Amino acid sequence: MTSCLHDHSKWGKGDQLGAANLLSAENTLAALALAKTGRVIDLSHIIENGAPYMAPNQTPYVIHSGATARNSKKVRAAMGATNDVGANLERVGMTMHVGTHIDALGHFSIGEHLYGGHNIDDSVGDFGLIDLGIENMPPIITRGVCLDVSGLDGGHHLKPGRAITTDDIKRAFEAQNVTPQSGDVILINTGWGRYFMTDNTTYLEGEPGPDEGAARFLTEMGVVAIGADNMALEVLPGINHPDVMMPVHQHCLVEAGVHIIENLVLAELAREKIGVFCFVLLATKYKGATGCPVRPIAIL
Amino acid sequence: MTSCLHDHSKWGKGDQLGAANLLSAENTLAALALAKTGRVIDLSHIIENGAPYMAPNQTPYVIHSGATARNSKKVRAAMGATNDVGANLERVGMTMHVGTHIDALGHFSIGEHLYGGHNIDDSVGDFGLIDLGIENMPPIITRGVCLDVSGLDGGHHLKPGRAITTDDIKRAFEAQNVTPQSGDVILINTGWGRYFMTDNTTYLEGEPGPDEGAARFLTEMGVVAIGADNMALEVLPGINHPDVMMPVHQHCLVEAGVHIIENLVLAELAREKIGVFCFVLLATKYKGATGCPVRPIAIL
Amino acid sequence: MTSCLHDHSKWGKGDQLGAANLLSAENTLAALALAKTGRVIDLSHIIENGAPYMAPNQTPYVIHSGATARNSKKVRAAMGATNDVGANLERVGMTMHVGTHIDALGHFSIGEHLYGGHNIDDSVGDFGLIDLGIENMPPIITRGVCLDVSGLDGGHHLKPGRAITTDDIKRAFEAQNVTPQSGDVILINTGWGRYFMTDNTTYLEGEPGPDEGAARFLTEMGVVAIGADNMALEVLPGINHPDVMMPVHQHCLVEAGVHIIENLVLAELAREKIGVFCFVLLATKYKGATGCPVRPIAIL
Amino acid sequence: MTSCLHDHSKWGKGDQLGAANLLSAENTLAALALAKTGRVIDLSHIIENGAPYMAPNQTPYVIHSGATARNSKKVRAAMGATNDVGANLERVGMTMHVGTHIDALGHFSIGEHLYGGHNIDDSVGDFGLIDLGIENMPPIITRGVCLDVSGLDGGHHLKPGRAITTDDIKRAFEAQNVTPQSGDVILINTGWGRYFMTDNTTYLEGEPGPDEGAARFLTEMGVVAIGADNMALEVLPGINHPDVMMPVHQHCLVEAGVHIIENLVLAELAREKIGVFCFVLLATKYKGATGCPVRPIAIL
Repeated sequence: MTSCLHDHSKWGKGDQLGAANLLSAENTLAALALAKTGRVIDLSHIIENGAPYMAPNQTPYVIHSGATARNSKKVRAAMGATNDVGANLERVGMTMHVGTHIDALGHFSIGEHLYGGHNIDDSVGDFGLIDLGIENMPPIITRGVCLDVSGLDGGHHLKPGRAITTDDIKRAFEAQNVTPQSGDVILINTGWGRYFMTDNTTYLEGEPGPDEGAARFLTEMGVVAIGADNMALEVLPGINHPDVMMPVHQHCLVEAGVHIIENLVLAELAREKIGVFCFVLLATKYKGATGCPVRPIAIL
Repeated sequence: MTSCLHDHSKWGKGDQLGAANLLSAENTLAALALAKTGRVIDLSHIIENGAPYMAPNQTPYVIHSGATARNSKKVRAAMGATNDVGANLERVGMTMHVGTHIDALGHFSIGEHLYGGHNIDDSVGDFGLIDLGIENMPPIITRGVCLDVSGLDGGHHLKPGRAITTDDIKRAFEAQNVTPQSGDVILINTGWGRYFMTDNTTYLEGEPGPDEGAARFLTEMGVVAIGADNMALEVLPGINHPDVMMPVHQHCLVEAGVHIIENLVLAELAREKIGVFCFVLLATKYKGATGCPVRPIAIL
Repeated sequence: MTSCLHDHSKWGKGDQLGAANLLSAENTLAALALAKTGRVIDLSHIIENGAPYMAPNQTPYVIHSGATARNSKKVRAAMGATNDVGANLERVGMTMHVGTHIDALGHFSIGEHLYGGHNIDDSVGDFGLIDLGIENMPPIITRGVCLDVSGLDGGHHLKPGRAITTDDIKRAFEAQNVTPQSGDVILINTGWGRYFMTDNTTYLEGEPGPDEGAARFLTEMGVVAIGADNMALEVLPGINHPDVMMPVHQHCLVEAGVHIIENLVLAELAREKIGVFCFVLLATKYKGATGCPVRPIAIL
Repeated sequence: MTSCLHDHSKWGKGDQLGAANLLSAENTLAALALAKTGRVIDLSHIIENGAPYMAPNQTPYVIHSGATARNSKKVRAAMGATNDVGANLERVGMTMHVGTHIDALGHFSIGEHLYGGHNIDDSVGDFGLIDLGIENMPPIITRGVCLDVSGLDGGHHLKPGRAITTDDIKRAFEAQNVTPQSGDVILINTGWGRYFMTDNTTYLEGEPGPDEGAARFLTEMGVVAIGADNMALEVLPGINHPDVMMPVHQHCLVEAGVHIIENLVLAELAREKIGVFCFVLLATKYKGATGCPVRPIAIL
């Protein structure tokens, strides 16, 4: 897999964007032109205490009320305020890989190598990534394509460990009568998302998802990002597990510079057989973060 | 101020949206039609350790590397992986009111009352808001209007404590040759944003911003949200401080159901005298949160 | 239960110490005199990621490396240091009720009332307890008594829901040939501690522990604190569950001003049939905290 | 300085205790015999929001209320409880080097080396130290010696950058008429502790403390730990700053296996000219932590 590490950064030395270089003003206009009715479909889950996470690298999401109106208005009254003004705030502890989120390019390595020739000694600091953090991700406004493969095996969802192959992907494009194009964001509906917060134990035990071949097919088409309605995009356990772990992450993020979007909500798109839409994802610029929770949408 | 508390919820009992009810598919299409070139202007700051916060209610933002590629690839190798796969993740502690962010309607109270007749005993739980949390905020795609008042007193920015009045606002609309309309998001450039992370002590000592009258003028126009390039939107110290604290928050959030956007980056819009644009803000759905960090954009 | 709320604060209005008022220099000397050999037995568990907690009120313990020697020595070298100096630090998120810990008097309420006539509106702030936080707890150096009831039903441990009664407690004192005295700390070995971190699911499903009658018997003897080798001291589910929840906490903390120590390691004391010893517990003074992790010891 | 790295671990390969090997049952009995009156002097500060920290490696302490009695009793009532039972808990975020604390041996490195031949690649994990974490520290019950050097220059405290030399230390022992002995814990009162939480800016700008020579003199005497009433024990800026940073930490922790105690409260000992006492410090066993907040005491 590492054979292409020296030449994969076709966007030049030190590049922080990867396939996001394919985004452009023209691309934005073309994507916006896909919006015909103004209907917006939300593609994200609510994030709350108890949200699923993959221990130990991912850590639990914790939110508490911090300041409360009841107490803070007493504090302000003591300072002289007569307008009985209360404020509520919270304190949150989390990893960025909670709920619906996007992975930054620096999230994974192949050995010592990150995307674009960056290496982990120079680019991973104590306070987050020095290079390839999510703050480098530009706004994504591009064509989105939803591929619904949930029914491939005759049920409502594929099973954990079920690899979605290149052929499966090709057939899904055909079924939508869509040809992949440079700048696309591809969203894969496996049906697995139904277990998010309804049965987290099941959700985390494994998942269906694309194998490395399918991922390579998509990245070679020039996609900007690939997402799915599961925890980690790729099939788990992987087809060569435990010899090879997380190869789709290694290929997409490190080799291809293609972002990954996880824990998506794609049921509405699938139910209505919506294949193509204006996709918008605005990653919050947390410096050095290896991803961030997001709220992607489809505009029809 | 509390006289209108009984009738302000014109959108019905239990409403969680406030002025966001004014958003619609038609409004979305009209906003998208404002995009002519596809150029995107980012309106947000990078969020990092040391980001300014207003103690004690706001608490410091802390990000650290959690899992690191160097260590995690050792762990996976010990499990049998031969593909030398490393992952970087982080752990973050924060309040939602860090960096460029939007306030949820439940962020402030007038006494025991939150927006829409909700009261703090029922609607403020231990793990965040039970009502009026940011997860209720729909995607905002609407017309944005930038009002540049930074030069009103002849400098590059207004001074702390300098109240922006209704007349100032009206003149700024006239200068842009824009008439406010229902569904707008209004962004006020005071120039104060230049001190964000360049001089946080100054940034936090006070700020210019609209007074309550100016805020009322805007909410009566039917705006969905009001934002500024400062920490708390409104003039600090307020014009009747300490008798009246944070009246603009009380009016906008509690009385009018109008969201507030803070710590915006408006310099580029102001420099290029861009008055009207397609504004997009996608609030991440953290359940019960009193706001969230965002990455709003202007599409031209 | 609330009938004695008006007169229980025998140590005066505003008292923050409760039964810890019984500690004295004389008591300290008497306790130290119990140390004959200088052998120290550690009564605490190691606290680590994955430590058991009772959701939702208790929240997960999370520790990860923060600054690391590898990176921090680069930072210092860049500042001019030639002595290749690295520092490791961590970031921790936790509730204080993790691992072996002591409960502060303000941890529980009976309705609006905390220990000693304090009420929750005045004494529970946004940043912890205003009264009755753990910082008020003096160092505990006193006689410790270990009561081993683990074999009462013929096994290695009592079962979840098995209430330890006053008679059980009395017989355990007799078996040790010990008479309870003012100032004692009583540690109850149920055998349940064997599941801490070896089988947290079992450990959290319920537990044996004293019922309210047994607790009252002990507090009337003038004990300073009661501890056990389980999560919550008292029998769970309680004997009148769900009508009455956590009555031992209400009685000990609120009515009697007696501290509670949880998740103790008592196996070594029990195995060697050690009944009486010098007990030392030094609660870290976290202001307003409702308890804190500790490392109590027995000195023989 | 690194010349002795190969032979400093006189307690054997893989040792995790360092000079704490000098603690013994005999030593414990001898220390307890120093307690004549049973009076206990607390040597620790209260830890609260706003506690001083040395950015960026140390991170801010944050505590806020988590579950509250007001809300939690509603939750339990809804589950059927009739005993109106409320619980207060908190959520804390911190580094272990906050307030009065002890440093674990693995806190500092000399290059790649930690104490005892451990190296950072093997011994520093993503979730704390794999070796030399504070959970390895045994309870400390030993002779404490307080050296009051605060008046050496004629004021109430020494000035930042004022190095306490070996001669200063020797004279302080003489003034107390004490000879250092194996197993001692040495506490140095510089007077600087008066600025803790009264003027944190001053407290953090620099500090008086022992230089490397003075530290070596003490470690050669066989002390178990050295503490002071300042942030970092050693003189800051150091006498060869910036060429040499934190040499006392490197010597004590890495070379000598001697623990460091910081932010002590020594004013009462100094004021009463108390030189020798029974010292007790019980480090909470946070696995892999590079130290922990503590509450050391002197028993007279």
